Amino acid sequence: MHILITGAAGMIGRKLAARLVGEGALSGRPIDRLTLLDISAPPAPEAAAFRVGAVAADIADAQAARAAVAGRPDVIFHLAAVVSGEAELDFDKGVRVNVDGSRALLEAVRAAGDYRPRFVFASSLAVFGAPFPEAIPDDFALTPLTSYGTQKAMVELLLADYSRRGFLDGVGIRLPSIVVRPGRPNQAASGFFSAIIREPLAGREAVLPVDDGVLHWHASPRAAVGFLLHAAGLTREQIGPRINLVMPGVCCTVAEQIAALRRIAGDKVAGRIRREPDPLTARIVAGWPSRFDPRRALALGFKAETSFDEIIRVHIEDELGGQIAS
Amino acid sequence: MHILITGAAGMIGRKLAARLVGEGALSGRPIDRLTLLDISAPPAPEAAAFRVGAVAADIADAQAARAAVAGRPDVIFHLAAVVSGEAELDFDKGVRVNVDGSRALLEAVRAAGDYRPRFVFASSLAVFGAPFPEAIPDDFALTPLTSYGTQKAMVELLLADYSRRGFLDGVGIRLPSIVVRPGRPNQAASGFFSAIIREPLAGREAVLPVDDGVLHWHASPRAAVGFLLHAAGLTREQIGPRINLVMPGVCCTVAEQIAALRRIAGDKVAGRIRREPDPLTARIVAGWPSRFDPRRALALGFKAETSFDEIIRVHIEDELGGQIAS
Repeated sequence: MHILITGAAGMIGRKLAARLVGEGALSGRPIDRLTLLDISAPPAPEAAAFRVGAVAADIADAQAARAAVAGRPDVIFHLAAVVSGEAELDFDKGVRVNVDGSRALLEAVRAAGDYRPRFVFASSLAVFGAPFPEAIPDDFALTPLTSYGTQKAMVELLLADYSRRGFLDGVGIRLPSIVVRPGRPNQAASGFFSAIIREPLAGREAVLPVDDGVLHWHASPRAAVGFLLHAAGLTREQIGPRINLVMPGVCCTVAEQIAALRRIAGDKVAGRIRREPDPLTARIVAGWPSRFDPRRALALGFKAETSFDEIIRVHIEDELGGQIAS
Repeated sequence: MHILITGAAGMIGRKLAARLVGEGALSGRPIDRLTLLDISAPPAPEAAAFRVGAVAADIADAQAARAAVAGRPDVIFHLAAVVSGEAELDFDKGVRVNVDGSRALLEAVRAAGDYRPRFVFASSLAVFGAPFPEAIPDDFALTPLTSYGTQKAMVELLLADYSRRGFLDGVGIRLPSIVVRPGRPNQAASGFFSAIIREPLAGREAVLPVDDGVLHWHASPRAAVGFLLHAAGLTREQIGPRINLVMPGVCCTVAEQIAALRRIAGDKVAGRIRREPDPLTARIVAGWPSRFDPRRALALGFKAETSFDEIIRVHIEDELGGQIAS
C-alpha cells in the first residue's frame, strides 16, 4: 500500500508519519511506500521498513499536484493548509493554499483517470460559527466566521461532490482543537488551551487570557492521528453520502482543565497559570463552537479521550517521556 | 443609482430588468443606469427612462469581470449560472461558470478598492440534500446532492466571507423551484412542475412523470423578482452575519397543484395531464427538499404566494394576458 501525506512537516503530519512507520500497516494492509509532501521537504522518520520519500512541492501548482499523485497512492491524507491566524491575516494566501491547493490536488486525482484513492481531508470545527444550540448536531449549518473556516467548508463541499461523482473516495474529518500541542507557544488564538497545560508541566509560567468558564471541545494529537487512520479504513458504505464528519472530543471548561492539571501534577504546577484577561482573545473564542453531539462519528467508531485528565496523561506519555517537572 | 444584472438574458434576469425599468427606482432611490450582462448580449427592455447598456461577457474571465464592475454599480444582481442539469452533465463547465465566474466577479469588486456594493446572489435550495427533517430549519446543514448545489453552496460561503471582511455587502437568496416557468418545456428534471400547469393552460398535453404525492416548494417568477428586489433593499444590520437566506414558498403536493388547476381552469384543462411515470425523474426528485421553515426570511419581510392557486393566477396574469385557452 502506498500512502501520501500532504502537510507532512506539520505537527499532526509528523505524528501520523511516525505512527505509520511504527505500525507498518494501515487498515490491516502492509505499507510498502510512504510519500511525505510539504512546501519544504519534511523530515523522513527513521527506521522505516519500507520506502519513504520526502517531497518539497506547492500543491497549488497544478503540475506539482499531478506529480504528487503520479505514483497513485492508495490513500491520501491531505493535511496541507495555511492555519487560521495566517488565513485571516493574508486572505489571498489562505484562498490560494487552502482552496486552490486542495482543488489542484482533487483535480490531479481526477485527471489521473481509472484511479479512485481514499482521500482523507483534515477539516476543522471552524466550519461552524456562533450562534449555536447548546449541543451542535451533525446536521448543523455551515456558517464559518473566519476565512480559514470558509476555505475548509468549501473544500468539504467539493470533496463530497468529487466523491459522489466517483472521481475519488473522500472523507472529511472536522478536527477539534488539538490539545496539548507540543512545542513553543504560537500566535493562534486557541494557543492558550495548550499553553496552560504544557508550560506549567515544563516548569514555566503560562498566561490565561480568558475566563475560567470558557467551554471548549478538545482532543489530543494522538487522538487526531487516530481519527485520520480510522477514516482511512472505513468503507464507502459505512460513510454514506454525508462524508464530512464532526470528530468526537472532550468538552470542558478552562476551570475543569486546570482542575485536571492540579489532580495530575499538583498545586505547584497548577499555580504557574497567571490570569491576564485579553478582550480580543475572549471575543474570538466566544465565536467558536464548544459542545457537539457527534453521533455519526461515534457510531462509526471514531474515538477521542473521555476526560481532560486523559488528554494531559497522553501529553505526559507522548511528549515528556512520562515525567513531570516538579 | 447604477444597477448591474449578470445572467440578464435568463428568464428571471429579463423579468427583473423589465420590473426595474417599469418602476424606475430601487428601494426608493431613482435608477439612472442599468447594465445587463450575459454571455450573449441580452435584449434591452424598451422605453427605459434611464441609460440601459447590454454587455456580452464571460465573467469567468478576470478581465471581463473587472470591466463589468468598472462602472461601480451600486447594486449587483448576480444571476449568471449554468443550470443544474448542465452542471451535472458538464462538471468542468459548471465549476468554471458557477464557481470561478462568481469568484472572478467577487474579486473584481474587491480589487476595485474603496467600493462596497450590495451584491445579491441568486442561490438555490439545491444547496440542501436529503435526508431531511419534516420541515427544514434555517440552520440546516449544507449537503448538496448535485454539482450545481455544491457550486452554489461554495459561492454562498465565499460571499459570506467577503461580506464579513468588508470587501462587499452580500446577501444570498436561496430560490425555490420557480413555477410556472414560461416558454417551452426544457430538460430540467423539475420542468414538469411548470409543464403540468403551463401546457394544459395553453391547450396542450403535459406529461407527469412522478407520483401525485410528491411534495415540493414553489414560488412564481414574479415572487422571485420580488425576493431579489427586497434583498437589495435590506440593511446590513437587518441581514446580520448569516447572509444566505432560504426564501419562502408554497409547499404542496402534485395532487394539490392539479386540484388548484382544476379549480381555476376546469376539468377539461386539468384533463390534459397524462401520467407517465419515469423512475429516473422520481429518484432525482426524491433527493430534493420539500418543506422549509424559513423564519428568518419571513421576519425580514420576504413574501411569496400563499397558495398554489395564487401561483397559477400570477402565471395567467403575467404570461397569458389574463386569458385561459378553454
